[in-house]
Amino acid sequence: MYRSNTCGELNISHIETEVTLSGWVHKQRDKGFVVWVDLRDRYGITQLVFDEERTAAHLLETARKLGRETVIQVKGTVIERASKNPNIPTGDIEVLVTELEILNESLLPPFTIEDETDGGEDLRMKYRYLDIRRNPVKENLMFRHKVSMEVRKYLSDQGFIDVETPYLIKSTPEGARDFLVPSRMNEGQFYALPQSPQTFKQLLMVGGMDKYFQIVKCFRDEDLRADRQPEFTQIDCELAFVEQEDILNTFEGLTKHLLKEIKGVEIDNFPRITFDDAMKRYGNDKPDIRFGMEFGELNTVAQHKDFNVFNSAELVVGIAVPGGNSYTRKEIDKLTDWVKRPQVGALGMVYCRCNEDGSFKSSVDKFYDQEDLSQWAAATHAEPGDLICVLSGDTNKVRSQMSALRMELAERLGLRKPEEFAPLWVIDFPLLELDEETGNYHAMHHPFTSPKPGQLDLLDSDPGAVKANAYDLVLNGNEIGGGSIRIHDKKTQAIMFKHLGFTEEEAKAQFGFLMDAFQYGAPPHGGIAFGLDRLVAILGGQETIRDFIAFPKNNSGRDVMIDAPATIDDTQLKELHLKLDLE
Amino acid sequence: MYRSNTCGELNISHIETEVTLSGWVHKQRDKGFVVWVDLRDRYGITQLVFDEERTAAHLLETARKLGRETVIQVKGTVIERASKNPNIPTGDIEVLVTELEILNESLLPPFTIEDETDGGEDLRMKYRYLDIRRNPVKENLMFRHKVSMEVRKYLSDQGFIDVETPYLIKSTPEGARDFLVPSRMNEGQFYALPQSPQTFKQLLMVGGMDKYFQIVKCFRDEDLRADRQPEFTQIDCELAFVEQEDILNTFEGLTKHLLKEIKGVEIDNFPRITFDDAMKRYGNDKPDIRFGMEFGELNTVAQHKDFNVFNSAELVVGIAVPGGNSYTRKEIDKLTDWVKRPQVGALGMVYCRCNEDGSFKSSVDKFYDQEDLSQWAAATHAEPGDLICVLSGDTNKVRSQMSALRMELAERLGLRKPEEFAPLWVIDFPLLELDEETGNYHAMHHPFTSPKPGQLDLLDSDPGAVKANAYDLVLNGNEIGGGSIRIHDKKTQAIMFKHLGFTEEEAKAQFGFLMDAFQYGAPPHGGIAFGLDRLVAILGGQETIRDFIAFPKNNSGRDVMIDAPATIDDTQLKELHLKLDLE
Repeated sequence: MYRSNTCGELNISHIETEVTLSGWVHKQRDKGFVVWVDLRDRYGITQLVFDEERTAAHLLETARKLGRETVIQVKGTVIERASKNPNIPTGDIEVLVTELEILNESLLPPFTIEDETDGGEDLRMKYRYLDIRRNPVKENLMFRHKVSMEVRKYLSDQGFIDVETPYLIKSTPEGARDFLVPSRMNEGQFYALPQSPQTFKQLLMVGGMDKYFQIVKCFRDEDLRADRQPEFTQIDCELAFVEQEDILNTFEGLTKHLLKEIKGVEIDNFPRITFDDAMKRYGNDKPDIRFGMEFGELNTVAQHKDFNVFNSAELVVGIAVPGGNSYTRKEIDKLTDWVKRPQVGALGMVYCRCNEDGSFKSSVDKFYDQEDLSQWAAATHAEPGDLICVLSGDTNKVRSQMSALRMELAERLGLRKPEEFAPLWVIDFPLLELDEETGNYHAMHHPFTSPKPGQLDLLDSDPGAVKANAYDLVLNGNEIGGGSIRIHDKKTQAIMFKHLGFTEEEAKAQFGFLMDAFQYGAPPHGGIAFGLDRLVAILGGQETIRDFIAFPKNNSGRDVMIDAPATIDDTQLKELHLKLDLE
Repeated sequence: MYRSNTCGELNISHIETEVTLSGWVHKQRDKGFVVWVDLRDRYGITQLVFDEERTAAHLLETARKLGRETVIQVKGTVIERASKNPNIPTGDIEVLVTELEILNESLLPPFTIEDETDGGEDLRMKYRYLDIRRNPVKENLMFRHKVSMEVRKYLSDQGFIDVETPYLIKSTPEGARDFLVPSRMNEGQFYALPQSPQTFKQLLMVGGMDKYFQIVKCFRDEDLRADRQPEFTQIDCELAFVEQEDILNTFEGLTKHLLKEIKGVEIDNFPRITFDDAMKRYGNDKPDIRFGMEFGELNTVAQHKDFNVFNSAELVVGIAVPGGNSYTRKEIDKLTDWVKRPQVGALGMVYCRCNEDGSFKSSVDKFYDQEDLSQWAAATHAEPGDLICVLSGDTNKVRSQMSALRMELAERLGLRKPEEFAPLWVIDFPLLELDEETGNYHAMHHPFTSPKPGQLDLLDSDPGAVKANAYDLVLNGNEIGGGSIRIHDKKTQAIMFKHLGFTEEEAKAQFGFLMDAFQYGAPPHGGIAFGLDRLVAILGGQETIRDFIAFPKNNSGRDVMIDAPATIDDTQLKELHLKLDLE
């Protein structure tokens, strides 16, 4: 035992107790006749005191020389502090040290181990083991643990069984790219790492497991966008003998439980919105509904005059920015520049000031009179004092542009409050999505998602119109979970594969085992998967996932701490029956 | 909702209730005027009844034609059975069916879905989703879930934090062979899948996480021995500021908790035995102590006569087989043949009968008199009625042979009782192990294990004699966990690498990040890892792990159900900058 107590637990009730503590030297203050050392461990900080009157001279000397992050063990007596610190749990006491042992020295860390560090992202990643000593990172990891435990407890209490599915599986070249694992024992063959345990959880339903869950690593070899990781964690779930309604209720229950247990927030029934409605009202299938600024479509009230920009547009849409009439002309011009950036891509922005006296002043007063503008205000629910921003163009593009503007404005206006939680279900997703480059349809969710009852025939006549039994759970503008009711009969699955461009041979080679399984009494089933990294970050009031992952990779998929990936020995390559094929 | 109740919950209290059930047709009995169907789901079996008097004719006809494993949904009324079945929870009732819907048809399964199936191992693996419907497999998986949950609960309650470590890491060619993952984004470079999260959990200790655990998949690309899997699950743990004693106490606590919660077995303090003692008394570092037959070394009482076989042997050792004097001569000859099989490798076996009258009769009476043999009996603790089996030869070999014989006899005598649990700690393992082929030493546990205090200098003079702060937890003759106190300073770690044959460059290239981390205030730390697959199997009273894994691989590392590994597309190879190099 290196300690009798942790550095976070001593208080006034321990006065006069002899204790042994171990930890890191967080800070040292040398006032000449007295030296204070803040000793830190996972649990907190305890102040150690050495002084000329009460401490042996050699001990005081040693204390004077202690560098930051040195690992020490001390014995001493808990005494009451002269000047207390009400900000920390141990602030009433200090430990008068009688023995001190240096357990390990430390070089000067490349950045300060403080809540606000001077270390940049790259340095923090290279020395992640030091970064984890910092409270914000440490607390994020402990928070993640708490969320995982609550998820497991809740699902287990609901009768779900945690079943581990394999990591060495088979490559399915459709969809995202697989990470591959060459097999030494099966020459010329490869395993793939799972992008999700999708087929296995469906097979567990065929196997009668009834309710399955797993918190599991998944892998996608994609070019990394910001805040994506090649390996990520899912809360993966599947249930048999259920309809969409059962799944929504079950996982609304889980989410409510987490919000209550972890954040102390109680939320009533989650709103539900169809995909079509979400696109119409928010330009986005994962709307942040912590704030308003819903889209007002203006075609009927803006296409009757001579303003050709609007008249030639497929969609004219506006939002009312609360209090936006206070923006100066210069600020509005800047906003216009913002929507014209290539990342957003609008050609311009029309605005209309809603004055406190009920009058309007727009950038297109040449074309529209007060009556017109009052109709814009009605359509966007603008109040006096607001600013109406209007974009126009092709429906899909303009919705996406307006969604970006809405989010940006909410951010600037402080409406995206990290400690406010606004979950909602987005339902009735399209089954298929048109790939505009290739002209082919691919599965919006995945090829195992079932179309809405009675819509199978539409697949031939109007594939884009087919809706799926698919749903997303959205929290604060982020998709935190998504799932679907699955196909459970071979015939429908075969039709789906055909429509997704699989030949019969391809379907059999890749998913023959699943189609076979469907012939032996597959029950109706469905499921959902949550992105744990994202869920934890949002519950933690943050939007970037990286600091909720102990050892994340950078945007090139590298772990800069261990320096992986790396080259391997020729003998390793040879054993795997491989040669490099470098450019 | 496809059901109002499961097939496992209806009883006499539900009489007259209208219910909806869904599940699989387990059995159908057609008595002409009445048809009974056993409807099965994860939770149990409920009897459905259709008869000429009370059931609509078309429904009775449908019921008559229901094949095994058809998925159906029924509505009906719970009624009391005429002839009750006390063996199942639902045995007092049956459901008089009023509506029946076939949810999915089933082909005839390739083997029967019964506790004792007619399906062989290969067929069961190919149709694992059907195998999982069988009670023994389903219950094993649910048992595993229960064990995992209890492990997590216990460790979390003890302040351990579940931290996920990365799966895409760096290859370390020493030790077992890594599975490799080519990186597309980093041309010519590879990730490796972790054989264990060893270095990461140590870095978490350097990072101040203090107590870490994770239930995590690990990977080893080894030629598979029976009952080994290329991917397996560990309960991985690490603690800072601890000594060996703290770790043994903590994980003895975990094991006691599991035995009590899962098996209802309470066990006092676990015995501890040194590695040397275990080898001497059981010929084995994972002794099964549910039974006796401890080794008696006979050198002093068997090397004083003219029997050259013994006189020339490094070790003469015997065990007393309880009641073994009842063996016929033929049976003993068969036992001799058994130890002479190449898998065991003894050159012969000497035996000595302990007669009920206190006299002895041995196979070497020509050399040894009654007084000699009574000393053999004393050394092996043989009682009248026992049979002493004696082997001789090189110490290491003969211990291993005798250990095999001891286990075989215990098996035959029914002494390895699956529902009896005898845990023990084996401690004081050697730090290094001589590879007899190469003459090199390698780490017995792993290169991060610390030598016993004060023994570092011995590394030069007598490397084989250095003991480590390493320990195994053994349960019923199986190592279920193992760990060590780690090295936590760069200098000692460098010395260890040197002794393991690493050049300075190799050590730096592979483990530079760990050595660097040790320079920034690494605390003393240590840990342990349990093999979850094995632990669960043993707690479940079985010795093979395969049926405690949902989707296991066969001895060639293949998943025969999904047919993986498999060949991949040329484009996939090309993207990974690889060419096949087939023979």
